[in-house]
Amino acid sequence: MTSTVPIEVPRGLAGVVVTDTDLGDVRGREGFYHYRQYSAIELAETRTFEDVWHLMIDRTLPDRDRRQSFFRETAQLRTLPTEIMDALPAVANANGESGPLAGLRTALALLGAHAGFRPVYDIDPEQRRADTLRACAAVPTVLTALHRLSAGRAPVAPRDDLPYAANYLYMLTGSEPEPERARAIEQYLISTIDHGFNASTFTGRVIASTGADVAACLVGAIGALSGPLHGGAPSRALDTLDAIGTPDNIDPWIRERVLAGDRIMGFGHPVYRTEDPRSRMLRGIAERLAAASGRDEDRALVEFATQVERRVLGILAELKPGRELHTNVEFYAGVVMELCGLPRSMFTPTFAAARVVGWSANILEQAADTKIIRPAARYVGPPPPQPVPPA
Amino acid sequence: MTSTVPIEVPRGLAGVVVTDTDLGDVRGREGFYHYRQYSAIELAETRTFEDVWHLMIDRTLPDRDRRQSFFRETAQLRTLPTEIMDALPAVANANGESGPLAGLRTALALLGAHAGFRPVYDIDPEQRRADTLRACAAVPTVLTALHRLSAGRAPVAPRDDLPYAANYLYMLTGSEPEPERARAIEQYLISTIDHGFNASTFTGRVIASTGADVAACLVGAIGALSGPLHGGAPSRALDTLDAIGTPDNIDPWIRERVLAGDRIMGFGHPVYRTEDPRSRMLRGIAERLAAASGRDEDRALVEFATQVERRVLGILAELKPGRELHTNVEFYAGVVMELCGLPRSMFTPTFAAARVVGWSANILEQAADTKIIRPAARYVGPPPPQPVPPA
Repeated sequence: MTSTVPIEVPRGLAGVVVTDTDLGDVRGREGFYHYRQYSAIELAETRTFEDVWHLMIDRTLPDRDRRQSFFRETAQLRTLPTEIMDALPAVANANGESGPLAGLRTALALLGAHAGFRPVYDIDPEQRRADTLRACAAVPTVLTALHRLSAGRAPVAPRDDLPYAANYLYMLTGSEPEPERARAIEQYLISTIDHGFNASTFTGRVIASTGADVAACLVGAIGALSGPLHGGAPSRALDTLDAIGTPDNIDPWIRERVLAGDRIMGFGHPVYRTEDPRSRMLRGIAERLAAASGRDEDRALVEFATQVERRVLGILAELKPGRELHTNVEFYAGVVMELCGLPRSMFTPTFAAARVVGWSANILEQAADTKIIRPAARYVGPPPPQPVPPA
Repeated sequence: MTSTVPIEVPRGLAGVVVTDTDLGDVRGREGFYHYRQYSAIELAETRTFEDVWHLMIDRTLPDRDRRQSFFRETAQLRTLPTEIMDALPAVANANGESGPLAGLRTALALLGAHAGFRPVYDIDPEQRRADTLRACAAVPTVLTALHRLSAGRAPVAPRDDLPYAANYLYMLTGSEPEPERARAIEQYLISTIDHGFNASTFTGRVIASTGADVAACLVGAIGALSGPLHGGAPSRALDTLDAIGTPDNIDPWIRERVLAGDRIMGFGHPVYRTEDPRSRMLRGIAERLAAASGRDEDRALVEFATQVERRVLGILAELKPGRELHTNVEFYAGVVMELCGLPRSMFTPTFAAARVVGWSANILEQAADTKIIRPAARYVGPPPPQPVPPA
């Protein structure tokens, strides 16, 4: 790039403002985040997933009529075209270790092509919106079908009378979920729809800035989410609980890790300098689920998790004073999903089933802009030969 | 983001330096670009595609022994696993209008899962390199198979004795290409491997910065390439030639478009402020092909194209003085591909068959860094409620 003076910024573009947005913000110091002008946690406590989906895509919280029509509009999009369902066994087969998230990438690429998604640059906002709804509504159907196919079971067809979250659990297990589990997952999903300008959201927007179709943007975002540094892996925090095993092992296990300089999964966040508000809400949900549960192991899990949290925070405060390390969303998200009977291989895919709505809202916002996102790099290799000036 | 003061930069991150690179650079004012320390045009004039692929991935131009071993290593990766070949008819079917590029997205997502590509963050550089070679070598096989399947014909199996470009043309048509056509396409492919920090390359690097697997990065990059604003669509320039039709229609057609403020496809580039060096090389190749061709229509096409170029530049200089609009890579790339018998639906896919090597080199460079690319946005919507301070 020689047309402008190179602009030096912090590594990883940290703090560099790429765009204006009215989708929301994360206030790291205050431990607060919002979707449009509403507290995301309050939305998760008081609203349905469809309400917040509508808020992100159609800009407002729906009234009763609008809620019903949006529910119908999205619920009927849950059924995949036969050609896509027919392709899923091969996709599930290919997946191997990489799991349903890699399969979702393939299936959405296929769905976008099959449904004739066209470049956002070439279509009007109404069509772009329709493409995002179709893609989002398909995600739970794809994920649960891939999960069941991998285990040698037939997919369960979606129901259009259940809310998004309840239908997701229904397709996963084949039976209607207990209401408190469905609501717990719905609240988790709402709290996960969007969260600032993370790497997957940014990826979706960079692709959208080229004018590419909605599937291209979402598939790129899913790819970024699959990266270990993105941080969207709630199963790792639960693996930590398993590794610790018993209460008397908490202190030695954690001290050893912290002194070795290892990261403790489920703690620390690049933006929050105080408790992650999602973590606080999810701890409450976990306690509610445990109290309502007839199973001793549910209560034991939540008690152990809160014990580990307290001890980790205590040890971190002692060994890394001033570092402001807190429990992040992964920690109690894993606990809540475990209590709701989700298998660990579906934890990150479940995260994706919510975040796809946030990506979609970001893609639609970016698509309304016509400036391509195209930064620069600085060449630092050996000097090339002197170029011959053009004739 | 509140942990740092927001950093204001130009829209679209123009001129913002994201990273250091030793892969090359584009010097817009000088009309010059290079791969590592070599002029890209000189490489296209004097080297094979495999040589330059080796330069990008393994950092050096190969000697004779190394050239042979790299050829063998990559040629044997051209054959796709049976499971992927078996899935391609369904992928080709789903494609509809979106064409082989959308199918490539799906097929590479599938290949990455099937071949067990793991997050670059979790594997060593040798394994990352191997994953990129596997993906790149698969691209011509996938693209030509999808093209043939869409037309109801059986795919042609790759040959491991032909160079990359010749094998690509062979798989497309089923017969060994004339040497001058194979060389022309090889030179085009070499010149297209990399070109600075464009949106698709940047997308691949953002995904790589999360530590995701090579397929995730490449699929995202392909998605960005498919965007109309990315500019990788050589068929559009040829459509312009068709629309003009005859020499006496050049002036009125161009004037009308320019006065209406329309962009003329094939002219103008975001970085070059002088002639695009790729355009100059490709014009020479087109003239060479026309001179060697026995077909009158080949000579007529090249003559018409050069006439249109001269007139467009003349009219632009007159109507938009000082704008420095020149022929870009699309213009003569389209002409060269037409002369070599490539169907227009394969123009952008052919571009991808070269650029995948550049994306790969960028992904490998980014994977060696452990800093995630995570910029910021500025919330400009209505104010949210005052957050309750954390307890």
